[in-house]
Amino acid sequence: MVPNALFVACVALLAAPLGVHSLWPIPRTLSTGSEGLKLAHGFAIQFQGSLSHHAPADLKAAVSRTLYQLKHDGLERLVVGRAGADTDKIAKARQLNALKVELVASASNNILGITQNANLPIGMRDEAYTLHVPADGSPSVLSANSTLGLFRGLTTFSQLWYTSGSTIYTVEAPITIWDKPAYPYRGLMLDTARNFFPKADILRTLDAMSYVKASTFHWHIVDSQSFPLVIPEFPELSAKGAYAPDQVYTPADVQEIVAYAGARGIDVMMEIDTPGHTSAISASYPEYVACPDARPWASFANEPPAGQLRLASPSVLTFVQQLITSVLKELPGPYFSTGGDEVNLNCYKMDNITQTQLVQHNQTFEQALDTFVQATHKPILGAGKVPVVWEEMALNNNVTLSNDTLVMVWISSANAKAVVDQGFQIVHAPSDYFYLDCGAGGWVGDFVAGNSWCDPFKTWQKAYSFDPLANITSDQAHLVLGGEQLLWTEQSSPSNMDSIIWPRAAASAEVFWTGNTLPSGNATSTSEALSRLHDLRYRLVQRGIRAIPLQPHWCALRPHACDLTA
Amino acid sequence: MVPNALFVACVALLAAPLGVHSLWPIPRTLSTGSEGLKLAHGFAIQFQGSLSHHAPADLKAAVSRTLYQLKHDGLERLVVGRAGADTDKIAKARQLNALKVELVASASNNILGITQNANLPIGMRDEAYTLHVPADGSPSVLSANSTLGLFRGLTTFSQLWYTSGSTIYTVEAPITIWDKPAYPYRGLMLDTARNFFPKADILRTLDAMSYVKASTFHWHIVDSQSFPLVIPEFPELSAKGAYAPDQVYTPADVQEIVAYAGARGIDVMMEIDTPGHTSAISASYPEYVACPDARPWASFANEPPAGQLRLASPSVLTFVQQLITSVLKELPGPYFSTGGDEVNLNCYKMDNITQTQLVQHNQTFEQALDTFVQATHKPILGAGKVPVVWEEMALNNNVTLSNDTLVMVWISSANAKAVVDQGFQIVHAPSDYFYLDCGAGGWVGDFVAGNSWCDPFKTWQKAYSFDPLANITSDQAHLVLGGEQLLWTEQSSPSNMDSIIWPRAAASAEVFWTGNTLPSGNATSTSEALSRLHDLRYRLVQRGIRAIPLQPHWCALRPHACDLTA
Repeated sequence: MVPNALFVACVALLAAPLGVHSLWPIPRTLSTGSEGLKLAHGFAIQFQGSLSHHAPADLKAAVSRTLYQLKHDGLERLVVGRAGADTDKIAKARQLNALKVELVASASNNILGITQNANLPIGMRDEAYTLHVPADGSPSVLSANSTLGLFRGLTTFSQLWYTSGSTIYTVEAPITIWDKPAYPYRGLMLDTARNFFPKADILRTLDAMSYVKASTFHWHIVDSQSFPLVIPEFPELSAKGAYAPDQVYTPADVQEIVAYAGARGIDVMMEIDTPGHTSAISASYPEYVACPDARPWASFANEPPAGQLRLASPSVLTFVQQLITSVLKELPGPYFSTGGDEVNLNCYKMDNITQTQLVQHNQTFEQALDTFVQATHKPILGAGKVPVVWEEMALNNNVTLSNDTLVMVWISSANAKAVVDQGFQIVHAPSDYFYLDCGAGGWVGDFVAGNSWCDPFKTWQKAYSFDPLANITSDQAHLVLGGEQLLWTEQSSPSNMDSIIWPRAAASAEVFWTGNTLPSGNATSTSEALSRLHDLRYRLVQRGIRAIPLQPHWCALRPHACDLTA
Repeated sequence: MVPNALFVACVALLAAPLGVHSLWPIPRTLSTGSEGLKLAHGFAIQFQGSLSHHAPADLKAAVSRTLYQLKHDGLERLVVGRAGADTDKIAKARQLNALKVELVASASNNILGITQNANLPIGMRDEAYTLHVPADGSPSVLSANSTLGLFRGLTTFSQLWYTSGSTIYTVEAPITIWDKPAYPYRGLMLDTARNFFPKADILRTLDAMSYVKASTFHWHIVDSQSFPLVIPEFPELSAKGAYAPDQVYTPADVQEIVAYAGARGIDVMMEIDTPGHTSAISASYPEYVACPDARPWASFANEPPAGQLRLASPSVLTFVQQLITSVLKELPGPYFSTGGDEVNLNCYKMDNITQTQLVQHNQTFEQALDTFVQATHKPILGAGKVPVVWEEMALNNNVTLSNDTLVMVWISSANAKAVVDQGFQIVHAPSDYFYLDCGAGGWVGDFVAGNSWCDPFKTWQKAYSFDPLANITSDQAHLVLGGEQLLWTEQSSPSNMDSIIWPRAAASAEVFWTGNTLPSGNATSTSEALSRLHDLRYRLVQRGIRAIPLQPHWCALRPHACDLTA
């Protein structure tokens, strides 16, 4: 391990002028110079030590992608005059021939790949790395305790460079970085049920996530509107619940997505939301669903169509357990979410079968819900994994959760405190900071004045200003695993997927990687961050991600010229 | 001409059950049946009469594009079961072998093309057409007084059809349409100065505009941030004012865009905004610009950078006149805009040269502005064209405008009345209904709490609910030429161009084509419109326009199921 004491010591030693406007998230510790350095034509990334003969395939692939990015990013520095502004520095720059990549203190023949690291229990993942880029042309060195750390370092290395014609260079050598994330869970949630997203769009999003060192893809894969997940043991679910035969995720698709994510340091946390948000199951198993498409929908669900699993039915419990068991087989990661948001009591009140079953079992609604949740968590715990729920399961309804349950705080950032007070680990997913869909107007029909329920639009500045430890005591800080931005897709599709996510989702990626302190020791601020986020946005575009501009290009070329009081 | 009396008579005759969910904008008069009809494999579009030998090239091209769309749209009907729901009707459907296309009462050898029609003075454009699609397999007939009308009819025809496998069919034959627009100006404004848009993106947008029968592309081509327009007589303007050497519009680009638009029934109305919004000119002609990039910018401009033409300088007047004269040569249409919004008095107060010139000429600011505007309009009027201004030029500052000046009402829809009270023709472009950029959050730097000045997001429902004649007397109604939705691009680029414009901009396209009355005689409503707008959105996607979904796909398949009170 990179010793923590040494890490802390280096924070002090390297507290240097803030540099490398190209890095996002900004490393925890960073020292930069002001000399030019350019990549030699034969620039190579070379494995050292045990990696020379035993580099995992996914690390080799990551090196290949890094070399491709260095060659093809083609990003000119965002200054007036662009690459032309650096002509003098480029002329004087030394040439860098190699980046040497090594694992620290490892002589193992059995090196864990990036993928295996990404799927470890979250506390066991080691993402730390050090990177030194001398200005004199001697080899750069990237070292880490794990291939996952090396991958994060390669990601950083790929962001250091600009292009001028065929020259690939930096103007801030020498560069020394000691880096590791402040929080292990840095996520993005995608809802693939309100509207469908082909596999290619998800893979591209995973690429973009990896560029900002995200660690978790929270896949809200099914919901009341559609059930695109193909589960071989229950083929009717998608056959009748998907929007179209070609709008599904087969086991092979899931495997490909999970593997693609893992190779990019991203764990896939799938969610099968229960008992609410399950109307789509009524198409194949009508006997399992209460109040399917009941009207008026607003009385029975937060959005149409209504429909919830009959939570008091023993056969439903068996069905859900079998369903979760089947899905878990395909997922190597440590987490699985059973959702649990927005359970609607009216739906069960109007359902005679549920009412009869409650009487038969002599249960209240809350008791039945408790039984249901514990039943659904049983296969997860049995598989050695951690169940994940939305905040209502912890805060409402007196549900009994196992101590290590991970709770997603979504309704309001103000609710985080109440959840950690119960001793649960949390992920920040608050609608008031991190919901990417807010502000796009109402989508409900026949409602001219309708607006987004979570207005206004959550700007990157708002997301970036989030404090993960607000109202949380230092004793509780260890319960905060991180956070995620979320895209609910009532009004989204591949058409706007990139533009509604990027670069905004980079805001939380930095909040939870860097924390609230810059390498300089100063607090993070949107004022400091803006020029780096511009840089990331333009680099994302160069890499094929349709990220939107944050300002007129005129402003992007002139840091602070478009500040409020400039 | 299609006789107006006959047109009105047909409105009554054809007041039939509302059909053809696929049409947007919905025709003024429409009759549909419920029989199936499918295109024969050898389906052809055949010119009749004078067109047989003298069809203009742009009409021939439009026919080719229509045939391409019929073959490639590949849109399944938006119902549960999609194409499968229509199996029975398709099996019974007759085959349609031909659409006959004819000009009414024209035997001329010199038929005006679509392009020539689109560039006529706005009152002289005839966009009316009639279309009859019998159910019995006998040829369909499209007729109009002009090729522009025929083009509108081809656009309608292309929207009638769905796809089931290799079958192209409708389930609503017979169909009879008498149609013509309620307002001649149906526009979209694009700002290509805050961020640059390559030619290909503009051409694609023109295609999408033509699909909803838009008539005017309002091209806000330059602004304070950049000057991408290449003017051969003033090459330094773009050489120093464009963002990059390849981020310009050459005369050849402008010609191509104008020709592409014209062939699709769209006139290009270019705007060179003056005297404000001209900071970019200071890069090449610093002597012409007051307060360039003055700080704090908020004291001198509505957004950075500050900078306005020295309106009291005779050499500036000469320069602007020459500039406008040069640009006008490339533009065949009847309109040219000199802008005139957001002129900032402080900028001139701090500019010693302007103050000195005002004293020399013994002019107040208002008098100088009046002189300036009249001077800039002189070459426009001299070329037989109509000057266009933003509303401030009519409502503030006592500027003298020629009677036929066209005024764009943008600050608020409430200001339309004041402008028409002065006797000016107007185009509705109100920020409170039609600004596509609103609601995306603040973009000014170092301002965490910043939101869009024109919050909230303008939904399609809001735009669609616009009443062109609100507060306007019947005597004044003729002054309303139409309206447009507008995209200011501080936070937009090709990345989100399609998704921020479409399908929202279709809302005004229908408001100003159809007016506020449906073919049934009922008032238009978002409730009726939604399923048609879904249909358009899915068709746009099939045609390569990245239009966003308005609702979950589940709702799109089930009209009214997601209404507020459903």
